[in-house]
Amino acid sequence: MECGDPVQQVHLTSGMSVDALIRAIGNAGAYNGGAMAEAVRIYETMLEDSGATRFLGLAGAMVPAGMGGIISDLIRDGYVDVLVSTGANLTHDIIEAIGCHHYKGSSSGNDVELRQSEINRIYDIYLPNDAFSVFEEFLQGSFGKLKPGSVISISDLLRHLGGDLKSGILHTAVRKGIPIFCPAIQDSMIGLQFWLYNQTHRVTVDAFADMKGIIDICFDAERAGALLIGGGVPKNFILQSMLMTENGFSYAVQLTGDRPDLGGLSGATLDEARSWGKVEEDAETVTVYGDATITLPLLVAAVRGRIS
Amino acid sequence: MECGDPVQQVHLTSGMSVDALIRAIGNAGAYNGGAMAEAVRIYETMLEDSGATRFLGLAGAMVPAGMGGIISDLIRDGYVDVLVSTGANLTHDIIEAIGCHHYKGSSSGNDVELRQSEINRIYDIYLPNDAFSVFEEFLQGSFGKLKPGSVISISDLLRHLGGDLKSGILHTAVRKGIPIFCPAIQDSMIGLQFWLYNQTHRVTVDAFADMKGIIDICFDAERAGALLIGGGVPKNFILQSMLMTENGFSYAVQLTGDRPDLGGLSGATLDEARSWGKVEEDAETVTVYGDATITLPLLVAAVRGRIS
Amino acid sequence: MECGDPVQQVHLTSGMSVDALIRAIGNAGAYNGGAMAEAVRIYETMLEDSGATRFLGLAGAMVPAGMGGIISDLIRDGYVDVLVSTGANLTHDIIEAIGCHHYKGSSSGNDVELRQSEINRIYDIYLPNDAFSVFEEFLQGSFGKLKPGSVISISDLLRHLGGDLKSGILHTAVRKGIPIFCPAIQDSMIGLQFWLYNQTHRVTVDAFADMKGIIDICFDAERAGALLIGGGVPKNFILQSMLMTENGFSYAVQLTGDRPDLGGLSGATLDEARSWGKVEEDAETVTVYGDATITLPLLVAAVRGRIS
Amino acid sequence: MECGDPVQQVHLTSGMSVDALIRAIGNAGAYNGGAMAEAVRIYETMLEDSGATRFLGLAGAMVPAGMGGIISDLIRDGYVDVLVSTGANLTHDIIEAIGCHHYKGSSSGNDVELRQSEINRIYDIYLPNDAFSVFEEFLQGSFGKLKPGSVISISDLLRHLGGDLKSGILHTAVRKGIPIFCPAIQDSMIGLQFWLYNQTHRVTVDAFADMKGIIDICFDAERAGALLIGGGVPKNFILQSMLMTENGFSYAVQLTGDRPDLGGLSGATLDEARSWGKVEEDAETVTVYGDATITLPLLVAAVRGRIS
Repeated sequence: MECGDPVQQVHLTSGMSVDALIRAIGNAGAYNGGAMAEAVRIYETMLEDSGATRFLGLAGAMVPAGMGGIISDLIRDGYVDVLVSTGANLTHDIIEAIGCHHYKGSSSGNDVELRQSEINRIYDIYLPNDAFSVFEEFLQGSFGKLKPGSVISISDLLRHLGGDLKSGILHTAVRKGIPIFCPAIQDSMIGLQFWLYNQTHRVTVDAFADMKGIIDICFDAERAGALLIGGGVPKNFILQSMLMTENGFSYAVQLTGDRPDLGGLSGATLDEARSWGKVEEDAETVTVYGDATITLPLLVAAVRGRIS
Repeated sequence: MECGDPVQQVHLTSGMSVDALIRAIGNAGAYNGGAMAEAVRIYETMLEDSGATRFLGLAGAMVPAGMGGIISDLIRDGYVDVLVSTGANLTHDIIEAIGCHHYKGSSSGNDVELRQSEINRIYDIYLPNDAFSVFEEFLQGSFGKLKPGSVISISDLLRHLGGDLKSGILHTAVRKGIPIFCPAIQDSMIGLQFWLYNQTHRVTVDAFADMKGIIDICFDAERAGALLIGGGVPKNFILQSMLMTENGFSYAVQLTGDRPDLGGLSGATLDEARSWGKVEEDAETVTVYGDATITLPLLVAAVRGRIS
Repeated sequence: MECGDPVQQVHLTSGMSVDALIRAIGNAGAYNGGAMAEAVRIYETMLEDSGATRFLGLAGAMVPAGMGGIISDLIRDGYVDVLVSTGANLTHDIIEAIGCHHYKGSSSGNDVELRQSEINRIYDIYLPNDAFSVFEEFLQGSFGKLKPGSVISISDLLRHLGGDLKSGILHTAVRKGIPIFCPAIQDSMIGLQFWLYNQTHRVTVDAFADMKGIIDICFDAERAGALLIGGGVPKNFILQSMLMTENGFSYAVQLTGDRPDLGGLSGATLDEARSWGKVEEDAETVTVYGDATITLPLLVAAVRGRIS
Repeated sequence: MECGDPVQQVHLTSGMSVDALIRAIGNAGAYNGGAMAEAVRIYETMLEDSGATRFLGLAGAMVPAGMGGIISDLIRDGYVDVLVSTGANLTHDIIEAIGCHHYKGSSSGNDVELRQSEINRIYDIYLPNDAFSVFEEFLQGSFGKLKPGSVISISDLLRHLGGDLKSGILHTAVRKGIPIFCPAIQDSMIGLQFWLYNQTHRVTVDAFADMKGIIDICFDAERAGALLIGGGVPKNFILQSMLMTENGFSYAVQLTGDRPDLGGLSGATLDEARSWGKVEEDAETVTVYGDATITLPLLVAAVRGRIS
């Protein structure tokens, strides 16, 4: 067994850039700080590899926490080729895009009093019920323009909604022509609204229609890379799609707060994905354990400092 | 502010039953041990409330870890009225039901060598690729009996598969007439196999068709209770379905290894669900943080010791 | 790479014993459930190895949570040869032994109101200030019997206190002649009380006097085993003491809620201890990640079911 | 119940400073990202309050991970008035100060092979045994200059060692006249070396002699603030020392990877400390959950960007 480079003690300077901070942490190179620096290196390599198709998986309550701006900017600037999201993040993206807001609150807010004040809590973020009224109006209006009797895919439905918005993740993805996949769309406020619409209108959303789309992208990719924010359905859906091809992902960066020893996919290391062939044997991968409201801004700010 | 009952120091006896152990931990009543005892009490109350409709949410890689037997026994014995699962758990349930096995392995197994040995790793569990060949044969055979051109729901598809099995969760649910919901069915090996089938056969799975089913159950429930194993899509899909009614869940027990401060729903407390109205203001709820391969057997063994 | 035994799906029976539950979980054998069953097997082996010296490390707020009874019973029944504890656990052990109590409370109790009610909070456990008045009286009385001008070790001081008690961990350890080490005794209410006493009385506690004691025990041990509840000072102090000998621990079981990727010793795997030689190359070791208010009662109840 | 400010979606720019990043995260203000921004604000306030005595608690394996440079720079620049550390961090600080290094390694390194290569592992950091030979030579040499028969405090011993060093935390603290407390000094390689020395030389280290020092500092403080890196003995020793006065801490920032629901002090919120009076009722406090190899550099780089 051999040792690698010596750990360099970190020295910080006033006014230093995020990129410089990450380089200092990387020269130390231990624990999740080391993983963070490695994530920046791999994500930079992946974005600069013009032959790589870039997948972005988005789970966790990221948009209510203000992380949506980072995602839509990445899409706007051409750093995302395929987006796979939970329905919740798209719900909250629409809420912001139609002019409503999430608000700072308290994680120890009294939930019964919040209920009586018609405020919904997401840890320390508050979302008044009013927002869902505007949301309902927007969605029912947009759904109303769907062609009666048609059979569409989930990504068709999301593209339709994004076309009616002026900002945010869905809007930007549609404007840039990026496909948006959301396998569990029913499991969200968008899903509940569509169920309401479906009570009186017949539009069929084919659950499996999008699989051809994502698998074709996997087949067509010269190389593929994934940035996985959280785990959940987006992580697995991205990784499993590659199973249908001869290849695996060449790059993968995961930011997660879960832990591997519970066995669940959300906390699983990307090494585990190698055994399945979802990730190439010699792929560059790293998992950073921590809260993505810290690790995502760090990752993207540092990479932007390098590739601009 | 006032103190509750004194903490009673725990004394254990040789050969004691699980129920007695939980009572001793409950008399201490601290941290997750206290929550565990409270979970047993609430789950017992919920199962003994004949007016309560019982939902079971199943996330995490539970079937590969041997927890599937506990779930199918609960269904067999009438303790589950509605099952919401991830696609992965149903995939692994089918694998066991068709005579294949998961195997004990090592969490530090070399993933490149595992890949070369055609063994897939789930933390410290191994699953040989062979199982997926038998799985493919079974699924394609079963899919082949679907009516060409039909439009079905996800629960229809799962009921169809369960009807062709002889044991396990899906089989038992079908035999007992319990609906099985799996919003993100595409996000699983079942999904990939259906996509293969769909390449040459036209059967449409309507993504939203099941929402009427679960919401009707919510409307019809006198009271409702939920046992949530892990978080993910099953937790949210169960809780959100109640939003369409005037009521919330009266009982809810969650076993999760996540943490609340990351903001994600999987780790969120059930108090948070009160602010949304998913859970009644005066509902009996508890979250036990820990690995469900420990907390689920403990919960169910203790409750079985009480209600038999 | 090869697979081990097949995972056996868990089936639970009404009234089953804790030992039977652990055997069922062990036949599944995954994640922390599998580790729990392995911990029972190793701890049983360690207790039945008459040539093994058994160390117990006690960290975390275990006594306030009612876990003290398990520990004192283990000592009473001869299953502990050396105890290393944090000062806090010994403080709370004395509080219980002098007839005061910890009480059930709420993790969301308002801490400012608690302060005003003179109640101290430990997560969801409450401890009224009154207890510290009785504690002060007991300690100052007991300290008053120390020989003025003497130089004693920390274990001498703890033995002195235990001799004045009628129940609990300290009392039982003294009655059984078991040495109690507590390197950071100053870092506790016992420490603060001793400082008060020291203001007006001269008794010197030699910080290093106990090292000879624990290292001699390590030298004399034919084989050594450790049950580590939590990490902290007790874990390291036990493991490092063996470094001075040619040997390492032959058995080690750790119950911890920490995680390894943060680099701290409390969450470190026992494999890491092999590289240091603290643990033998072929030692039987396992770490169970979870809340010790669940895993400790499970471990001890199951082992008691086997060795009685 | 009322909502606070709206969450502002985060937008990142190329080359942005760490301070600007933290301001952007703070304008979002959710989960641990929000706590991180709050930690920067409170730590800045604390450092700019000229009437505040600043305590630094250092636990976890921080020096092997390169975080020692940040700590010694903070001391050098006058931002620390009292240091409380684990013995392990001071051990590794000495190792670096005498010219040895920690090295980058792998968390999946084979520990038996590492043992045979005489390399010690700390998660993904390697430390060759050679370093301990140099360490032993330095320590025994330095100890040899202690006055035979003397009775000293732990901080005396550490000041003595620091005086023989040319760089690092101990050296800088001594040079700046900052007291260093380490209640569990025995629980470290320094402790083992002192035990060796004590075999043949009589120098007595009085375990309680330092309590007067830290408690006097608490009495003399107009206001007090604490930066707590990890939990363990340093966190409690700092907080409990204030219990002897009428006052509590006015500022407290904790960076920890533990979780509160396990009941242990390391993961406990600083709110809990309010009930004990360790922290003032109206104190400004925040806990950031995450790996300190990420959160500590972020905190200090951002604060340095503001106070310079």
